[in-house]
Parts: sequence; structure tokens; C-alpha cells
Amino acid sequence: MRTVQVCLTPALLHLHPLEGHVVVVIDILRATSSITYGLENGAEAIIPVAQVEDCLGYAGKGYLLAAERNGEVVAGFDFGNSPFSYTAEKVQGKTVVLTTTNGTKALHLARERAAQVVIGAFLNLTVLVQWLREQEKNVVLLCAGWKDQFNLEDTLFAGAVVHALRDDFVHFDDACVAAEDMYRVAKDDLRGYLKKSSHSHRLAQLNIEEDVQFCLRQDMCSVIPVLQGEKLVPLTV
Amino acid sequence: MRTVQVCLTPALLHLHPLEGHVVVVIDILRATSSITYGLENGAEAIIPVAQVEDCLGYAGKGYLLAAERNGEVVAGFDFGNSPFSYTAEKVQGKTVVLTTTNGTKALHLARERAAQVVIGAFLNLTVLVQWLREQEKNVVLLCAGWKDQFNLEDTLFAGAVVHALRDDFVHFDDACVAAEDMYRVAKDDLRGYLKKSSHSHRLAQLNIEEDVQFCLRQDMCSVIPVLQGEKLVPLTV
Repeated sequence: MRTVQVCLTPALLHLHPLEGHVVVVIDILRATSSITYGLENGAEAIIPVAQVEDCLGYAGKGYLLAAERNGEVVAGFDFGNSPFSYTAEKVQGKTVVLTTTNGTKALHLARERAAQVVIGAFLNLTVLVQWLREQEKNVVLLCAGWKDQFNLEDTLFAGAVVHALRDDFVHFDDACVAAEDMYRVAKDDLRGYLKKSSHSHRLAQLNIEEDVQFCLRQDMCSVIPVLQGEKLVPLTV
Repeated sequence: MRTVQVCLTPALLHLHPLEGHVVVVIDILRATSSITYGLENGAEAIIPVAQVEDCLGYAGKGYLLAAERNGEVVAGFDFGNSPFSYTAEKVQGKTVVLTTTNGTKALHLARERAAQVVIGAFLNLTVLVQWLREQEKNVVLLCAGWKDQFNLEDTLFAGAVVHALRDDFVHFDDACVAAEDMYRVAKDDLRGYLKKSSHSHRLAQLNIEEDVQFCLRQDMCSVIPVLQGEKLVPLTV
């Protein structure tokens, strides 16, 4: 009897059993979208680290260094987490060391207990869902949120996954029901729906409208990033 | 610029500023529904306590003792938290000492920092909303949840309050948006919506269908329970 759970923020992850589970980490704006796009474009690996200082420890060793805090590139770094920094031209054959506000924290929390940690984004929705169907494992969809708070965009993506898995799993928790209903309401105009977000003003100030549009595009990628040791690499099916 | 926030479970309450705020504690099945109904029916006060042992400390002093754990009345107590135990016949002129799984915990967490803590339930929805409109305060809608986990019924009620306050407040957080959309989806058939809950099987086993139906009835009560010191008493407007 396989189950799907949605963990609405990392602050609730301790309530979820993860042993033997697949955890899908979700940080739509923008970490997991950019990670997916980067590996699709030939990056060898992406190493998520918790602190800006950890990232600096990789300086001068041939890595690309990416650091974002509060939605902006940290001064002195190669780039932050805009997906447009993860084109083939920039990342092919390279390893990127990345620290972000929410996504990295969620990844590190998940790997402590989960059987496998993968990355989800609208960019790889269909391939991810198909792979989850084929595993013999329970699934936890972990929304990275914003500083431990619930957010709309990650929950919407969790709802899209629940919606697609509805016929393949038996048990869904209450957060699955909520996320799926939100997705149903929003799915014909995801961008319009996110304008209802309390963060929309913050996003507008960051001038990342193109990034947002890009992160909501579906199925541009066929890669599933998976955590192997310290690194995110393409899953080989 | 008044704000409304929805706190989806007590485990997230530390993320919310509460100083100067009104906190509405919500535990629809069944604590806050029963508290509202009990005060409506002439109970002098209801004292929420954290532990079953705390409740026993009030034994032999003329109080009614109510204890519920995992949805059932604890052996040896006068009653649990079924609203049908809170009729005028049983509670008029009495003080009830109550411990419940989730509601009491949420109340105790809220009162540490909030300016005022009141109780919300579908039973007093309209009078509560009207009162919130008239205050000069920010509002936090605190869902008691189920053992710190998100649940549908408390979030639906939070959504009903958000829906009613939409024109009177300026800023709503992402959890408000989600709760309101869930309420919009569910409002024509709240009972049917809750059948999608992962808890519906547990509720069915408890044989409390009549309780559930009762707790979803709107506006049977005109009382707003408010926390004064250790006691919940009717708010005098």
C-alpha cells in the first residue's frame, strides 16, 4: 500500500517517516528548477552546500560558485540561482557548487533519513512522475518553502505530482488533498495564480519575471537530478 | 495595514509574530466546536489544561472533568470533547476542565505571546468574523491540526474566515490564499470534502459522524470564547 505525503515546509519534516522513502525536494523559485536545467545542459554535478562560506571553500579549484541569499546573487560569486545562468554554454562539463536560501537546507535535511533524494521542478514533471510510478517506494514531496514558511509555488508543484500519481498510490495525506486542489484551481494559469502570493511583490522587486515564467514551463527537461553523496547528478534509469 | 496570517499547524507558530495580534485557535473536530457550544449553553468557564494529570488535579472540587486522547474519552472522566456533552442540561453554571490532544496545546502556545486569544468554530463563524473586523489588530488563524500535522478541517475553517475578511484587511499570507481556495472548493459540501481526508477512516472508526455533522453547522452560536488568565469565558463585547 504505497503512500504519498506532502511536507509543506522543512519545519515539518520531523513529522514524516522517511526511512525507505523517496524524497522529492521542491524549490520551484528557483533552486530546483535551475539544478534540473543545469544537469539537463550537461553540468557534471551540482554540489549543494548550506552556507556561503562553505561555497567559498571550493574557490580556485575549477568549480563554478553559485550563491543566492534573499533572492539575489551574493557579491563575488559566478552566479546565483537564475535558470538562465545554467545554460550549456556556461555549465557543460562543469561542477557547480550552489548555496541557496531554502533549497539546500531542504536537501540536507532530507538526506539524513531518506532512501533516495531527487529533485523536482515543473521542468521535469512528467519524467519524474513516470519514474516515481515505477519505484516500489513511498514518496514524500518536500516543499522547501520560504524560510520554513509555507509557500504557494512549491505546494502547487507538489499538487501537480499528486494529481499525476492519484491512480498509482493508495494513501494520500491531508496535505496531498490540499495541494492537489490548489493545483486544480491554478493549473490553467499558474503564473496568474502566483500573483495572489504574498511574495509576488518581493519577486517583482527582484526583477525576475522571466525566471518565474521559465520555472513554470513544463517538461523542457528529461533529467532527474539525484543526490549521490554530496553531489546532485543525473539519475541513470 | 492590517494583516491576516494562517498558521497551518502549531509546529509553525514560532514563525509568526504574535505580539499585539489576535490569535484565533481552531480545532474544529472537536475541541473548539465543543468549547463554543458549551459557553453558548451557559457554562461559566472552560479551563484548558495540557495533561490528563493536570485535569485530575481539579477532581472533587465541583468541576466537570473532560479528557480526550486520540479522539476518545479517557476512562474515569465525566466526558471528552463531543459537542453533545456540552448541552445546557450538562454544563449550565458549571466550569469544565478540559484536556484535548491538539486544541489545548495550541491555546497554550498562543497565549504566551498574543495580545488576545479567542476560539473559532463554524458554530460561531459570523459573530467571530464581525468582531475581528472591528478590532484594530492583526489576526493569526492558528490551526490546531493533528499532532502537529496539517489537517483539512481546521484549514477549511481558516479559509472561511479569510474569505469573509478579504475586503477588510490588506495583507494575506500564502497560507491564507491556499486556505481560502480550499474553502471555495469545499464550501457547498464541507462534509463531502472532508471525506477526502486521510483521517476520515479514523473518524469513521470513532463513530462520531453526528459530531462531525454538528461541528460543521454554521452560526448556531453567538458567543466568542476568549482566554482570560487560565479560563475560556464568553467575550463581552
